[in-house]
Amino acid sequence: MRSRRVFNYGAGPAMLPAAIMQQAREEFLDWHGTGMSVVEMSHRGTAFMSIAEQAEADLRTLLGVPSDYCVLFLQGGATSQFGMVPLNLAPGGASADYLCTGHWSAKAAQEAQRLCKVNLVCGAGDQPLRAVPPPHSWQRSAGAAYLYYTENETIGGIEFHSVPDAGGTPLVCDMTSSLLSHPLDVSRFGIIFASAQKNFGPSGLVLVIARRDLLGRAPKNMPSLLDYAVHDKNGSMLNTPPTFSWYMAGLAFRWIAAEGGLGEMERRALSRSGLIYSCIDAGDFYRNPVDPAFRSRMNVPFTIADDSLHDKFLDEARAEGLVDLKGHRAVGGLRASLYNGMPQEGAEVLVQFMQEFQRRHG
Amino acid sequence: MRSRRVFNYGAGPAMLPAAIMQQAREEFLDWHGTGMSVVEMSHRGTAFMSIAEQAEADLRTLLGVPSDYCVLFLQGGATSQFGMVPLNLAPGGASADYLCTGHWSAKAAQEAQRLCKVNLVCGAGDQPLRAVPPPHSWQRSAGAAYLYYTENETIGGIEFHSVPDAGGTPLVCDMTSSLLSHPLDVSRFGIIFASAQKNFGPSGLVLVIARRDLLGRAPKNMPSLLDYAVHDKNGSMLNTPPTFSWYMAGLAFRWIAAEGGLGEMERRALSRSGLIYSCIDAGDFYRNPVDPAFRSRMNVPFTIADDSLHDKFLDEARAEGLVDLKGHRAVGGLRASLYNGMPQEGAEVLVQFMQEFQRRHG
Repeated sequence: MRSRRVFNYGAGPAMLPAAIMQQAREEFLDWHGTGMSVVEMSHRGTAFMSIAEQAEADLRTLLGVPSDYCVLFLQGGATSQFGMVPLNLAPGGASADYLCTGHWSAKAAQEAQRLCKVNLVCGAGDQPLRAVPPPHSWQRSAGAAYLYYTENETIGGIEFHSVPDAGGTPLVCDMTSSLLSHPLDVSRFGIIFASAQKNFGPSGLVLVIARRDLLGRAPKNMPSLLDYAVHDKNGSMLNTPPTFSWYMAGLAFRWIAAEGGLGEMERRALSRSGLIYSCIDAGDFYRNPVDPAFRSRMNVPFTIADDSLHDKFLDEARAEGLVDLKGHRAVGGLRASLYNGMPQEGAEVLVQFMQEFQRRHG
Repeated sequence: MRSRRVFNYGAGPAMLPAAIMQQAREEFLDWHGTGMSVVEMSHRGTAFMSIAEQAEADLRTLLGVPSDYCVLFLQGGATSQFGMVPLNLAPGGASADYLCTGHWSAKAAQEAQRLCKVNLVCGAGDQPLRAVPPPHSWQRSAGAAYLYYTENETIGGIEFHSVPDAGGTPLVCDMTSSLLSHPLDVSRFGIIFASAQKNFGPSGLVLVIARRDLLGRAPKNMPSLLDYAVHDKNGSMLNTPPTFSWYMAGLAFRWIAAEGGLGEMERRALSRSGLIYSCIDAGDFYRNPVDPAFRSRMNVPFTIADDSLHDKFLDEARAEGLVDLKGHRAVGGLRASLYNGMPQEGAEVLVQFMQEFQRRHG
């Protein structure tokens, strides 16, 4: 039991559903009568293999992953994918197109520049974007090995609400902060990746969903762990995988299905974030700069018109058990992250606090 | 509470000390009154930063890590280090010397061959070694960037019980299955690495202890996550680290110190493995092929003279709650792994079972 209820609005690692936290605690010392903990069992034994296979099967069902896609459970976080994507998909001097809509897509493009030719399709300027630039303005290159984008930018709070049209070019998407928060047509993508610690588990795990025909071209003068085809061939067990994070991701997949699936996750995300945006838009006290058509359902960055009130806001919120509302250090201000594990009540009490704070200081 | 007591002799992920498992369970939903779980908190917040810093400080104290060495908490397991070591220490066509004494050192050498010139100092033959070849027989190369070895081979059961003399060449050691099982003079090494899931934690974490003057030469056309200097500069938080494994490793470090430190861990390891070796050597029923001067204290591989009894041994052992005694699939036979988390009682009940099995079937 928690000593007192805290709502954590940090950008991740983030709150997980109370039900799966409780379950993980209950079976922490003895998983299903095996007499051992998940953290103590061989990754190649029948117990963990059943956990691993069930997790993959549940994820495939949730997302409707087509059979010609592999699902990999890897280490290294999304940052590892910033390097693996160009190494595997654009080897030997090939080029790739990057849609830059904020901090994380810019970071991915920067990392890719070490490894392949990078063309910035949009967002090459210094100013933070308020919207995804319209497709007619995109500067795509001929022969790009893939078109890359970040579905949700956690710092700027900009989210794609539809899948861009890549033509025949394989589409690669960083869904670290949005995977499993809405229904998805996986067949539109070449590669999707997402680290777990936002919407479906503890840190230490990154999920990669890849169309198999794109794999197998990684150069041989690279560490073998960077080759998707090697991981696919070894069932993500070329070496010992992050077993506890894999297990907890599996609990999250089952929880999502039991709660109603991805449609229900999207309904909840719209409801939670909608409450906060409505509160912000109701007056001039709070501000969010993003074009409503591209506002993130996962991360709501906002400021107070009188920015000298930010520290007071954080202090008073913390005193009420509303924690980690500080904006990313790159942009300052405030931010409420509202992933799958955040209950509706968390959005409600935050709005209540925001309204009271405004009454006291507005 | 465990439903029934099981001793797990698998090679890893392995049993952890009961005391730290209990503690991790007790604070799983609410770490130190923060109202959140370790798996749910920001890696950059004050709570997790205190966990991370305490773990590093405790490890530095346990091992007496000199101040000119960095301690990194990374993802990717020991296998990731098979690639990172040559990339960082032998860039631009340099060569490295590898002492091959079994499966894991051979794997490391094989991976290094993708990335630099590799000279096999010993163990280039096909036959499994029974002992570490004597230093006078080693074929070292001139100008090698480093001399590499694996302190304990989990499959062959061969362990170095002293640190080889590398002259002025930086010594690199894979201590995945032996770190924290005995006292160590870190200043003898250039780089030590060890994944956590044998002697000090869940999987998903690899510890790297590196002399700082060796870092900073990694090529720029590689993913930045492969550069030790980048991790050092970012305090192992270039990206989100494996927070739960880091936390549990910290619990293990404190437990080791509280139990008496590395000298006590070594005494216990000698005692546990000594019981098993004595039972094996007491007759002709069981066999271990390794020269007693190089026998592993962590992994005791053995066979039954009548090898048709192996399956029966495994079945009957399992029925008594003694699990994962099967030898590695590469060599077959039987194996008892006895890491820090294995209580003395685990060695005693195994010997008792071995003696009874021998009485019934000998």
